Order: sequence, then structure tokens, then C-alpha cells
Amino acid sequence: MSDGLTVPFALAAGLSGAVAASHIVVTAGLAEVAAGSIAMGLGGYLAARSDAEHYASELAREEREIIDVPEAEAAEVRELLESYGVMSHDAATVVDAMRQRPDAWRDFMMRFELGLEQPDPKRALRSALTIAASYVVGGLVPLVPYMAVATVGQALRISIGLTLAALFLFGFVKGHFTGAGPFRSAVQTVVIGGLAAAAAFAIARAIS
Amino acid sequence: MSDGLTVPFALAAGLSGAVAASHIVVTAGLAEVAAGSIAMGLGGYLAARSDAEHYASELAREEREIIDVPEAEAAEVRELLESYGVMSHDAATVVDAMRQRPDAWRDFMMRFELGLEQPDPKRALRSALTIAASYVVGGLVPLVPYMAVATVGQALRISIGLTLAALFLFGFVKGHFTGAGPFRSAVQTVVIGGLAAAAAFAIARAIS
Repeated sequence: MSDGLTVPFALAAGLSGAVAASHIVVTAGLAEVAAGSIAMGLGGYLAARSDAEHYASELAREEREIIDVPEAEAAEVRELLESYGVMSHDAATVVDAMRQRPDAWRDFMMRFELGLEQPDPKRALRSALTIAASYVVGGLVPLVPYMAVATVGQALRISIGLTLAALFLFGFVKGHFTGAGPFRSAVQTVVIGGLAAAAAFAIARAIS
Repeated sequence: MSDGLTVPFALAAGLSGAVAASHIVVTAGLAEVAAGSIAMGLGGYLAARSDAEHYASELAREEREIIDVPEAEAAEVRELLESYGVMSHDAATVVDAMRQRPDAWRDFMMRFELGLEQPDPKRALRSALTIAASYVVGGLVPLVPYMAVATVGQALRISIGLTLAALFLFGFVKGHFTGAGPFRSAVQTVVIGGLAAAAAFAIARAIS
């Protein structure tokens, strides 16, 4: 959502420095929102799916290794435990216990050796839709003033106010839920949006 | 880089359906590249920094808990090991070993209970610069034809060919390094770029 607020806002602000007609700004803005939401949504879908595939292939590899080279795998668990201060003899006892339960042993290796957790299979689709929808919702905020007001300069001023308020609100809510501190998070998202927009504005004005 | 190739390409293609002059496409495209690279670079920087802060605060919490409620923490380790088939008595021996080394115990909890690994402190800045530079490099590819050719229609055709070739090459190289299969990865990035651009093109043409 913050990318959706930031990039179309900055694009619209940048174009406002170069073109006189609001409808070109709206056209470019909506084209960006369509392209951005699809590219990021599909990108998120593929990233989540490739995480799931990576997990499945590592799981299969650990299962094979436990059958094919059990001594090597047992040594890995022993070394791992010894690195945390467990005595050699005690580590061997733990390894013996895991040998009785290959599934638990495999899960132990996945979590501890590889640091992998089983991904939720529904995550890929949900993640894609959430990203795309958030980008569209965020992206429409800075464009609404250009749809309502024909004069680019005036639309830009309303768009700046509206978008900074939305960035502040979004950062505040995000900071509240992630525990990062609402005000700090709000200021961060406002600064990112402002910098991106200022750079886009300067570049568009310089080349127009 | 694939976002950089996709979004400015789709924006330029979308605008090509709505405006006649290449320079407006170039202005909008460069404004998007500036806004996108800054928004994504800073976003990547903040994400990496907030990972590092999250790790540091969890580390401090585990250290406090090991001092304040050692019995509760010891019980967590025991339960964890028992869930992997280790006998109660053996798990208690492992816990005793860790009590001798609070630092190792804390690291064990970080890795095993929370699944967290210590982030590289230099990662935030490197990540930000890599993202921003890749977005700029990717974003210039689809825009070069509009800078070189004054006729939008002709520039669009060259841009389509150049960008699809770049997406294919990027997907191929990426697939080679991630082990996902170069051809499959190449086709995926081409499809994402194509879909995003087609949607942007359709929307821009519909409203212009």
C-alpha cells in the first residue's frame, strides 16, 4: 500500500511539472497503477510459490539423506548440539532418540540446520491478491484530485495534502501493529513518499 | 530489476495508446523510474533495518528471561526437545548443559524457538543501493527507444522487443542462479511483464 501511495503520487507530481492537462496525469497514473499492481501481485505470488517449492525440495533432500547417509546426518545433529555447550555423550543420546523417529529428525534438521518453516500453501494466492488490491487502493488516493480538478497545479496541491495524510495514517497504523512505534513509522513513510515524489518532480521538470 | 523492467515498460506502453509525443512518454517514464527506485530502495532499507531491530529486541528479551525466569525457559527447551522424540531425562541433561553457558542458551532459543538468524548489519544499506540501482538499470531499457525515436508507435514496437528480450534474459539468468530452471523462470518473467503491460495499455487506451 505504501508503494501504491508513493509511486503513483510521485509520478503524478512529476508529470504535473511537465504537462498542463490533468487527463494525461490521470492516464499515466492509472496505467502505472494497473502495471504496478499486476507486476507486484504476480511477483508476490511467484515469490510465495517458490518459497513453498524450496521447502518441499529441501524436505525431500533431508528425507533422502536420513536414509542414505544417516551417520553424516547424526554427526550434524551432534555437532550442532555441541556448539551450544551440550556434552558429546549427551548429544549422542539425543541423536539416538531422533533415530527412532525419522519424521521428527527430518523436521529437526529443517528447522535447525536450514532454518526453514513450512509455508502456508494458501499464502501465495492470498499474498498476491492482498498486494495487488493494496496497490490499487493506495494508488487511487493521489490520483483522485486530478480526476476532480482540471487545473494540474491545483490538483497537485490537493494530491500532496491527501497523499501525505494517507501516508501518515498508513505509517501510523502499520507502526501500531508491528510495535515499531506509530509516530516514528508514520514519519518514515511520509519521508519516503516525499523524497520519491520530490525526485520524480525534479527529473520531470528538468527534462520537460 | 524485473519490477524496473516491467512497470516503466507497461507505463510507457500504456501511454503510447493515449498520447502522440514520445517526449511525454519519456518524461512520465523517467519520473516513474526516479519515484520507483527511491521508494523501493528506501523501502528495502527500512525493511532490513527493522529486521535488525526486531532481532536485537528479541535477543534482549531472551537474555532477560534467562535471568528472570530460568525455570520457564528451561521448560521450553525440554518441551521442544521432547517434541522431537528426545526422552524427558535426556532433555533435562541438555538443558543443564545450556545453563552453564547462558550465551549459547540464548542463541539456541533465538534460532530454535523464534526461528531468527542474526541479520548482517551492512545488509540494509547494500540492499537499498542494489534495489535502487537495479530498478534504474531495468527501467531505462524500455525507455531508450522513446528517446531515440520520435514516433510513439515505432518506439513502442522497439520497446516491446527490447523489453521482452531483457525480461527473458533476466529470468533465464535468475533461474540459473536460484536453481528454479532457467527456461521456466525466463517464461515466468516474460509473462508477468507482458500481462502488466497489456493491462496498462488497455486501461490507458480506454480512458484516453
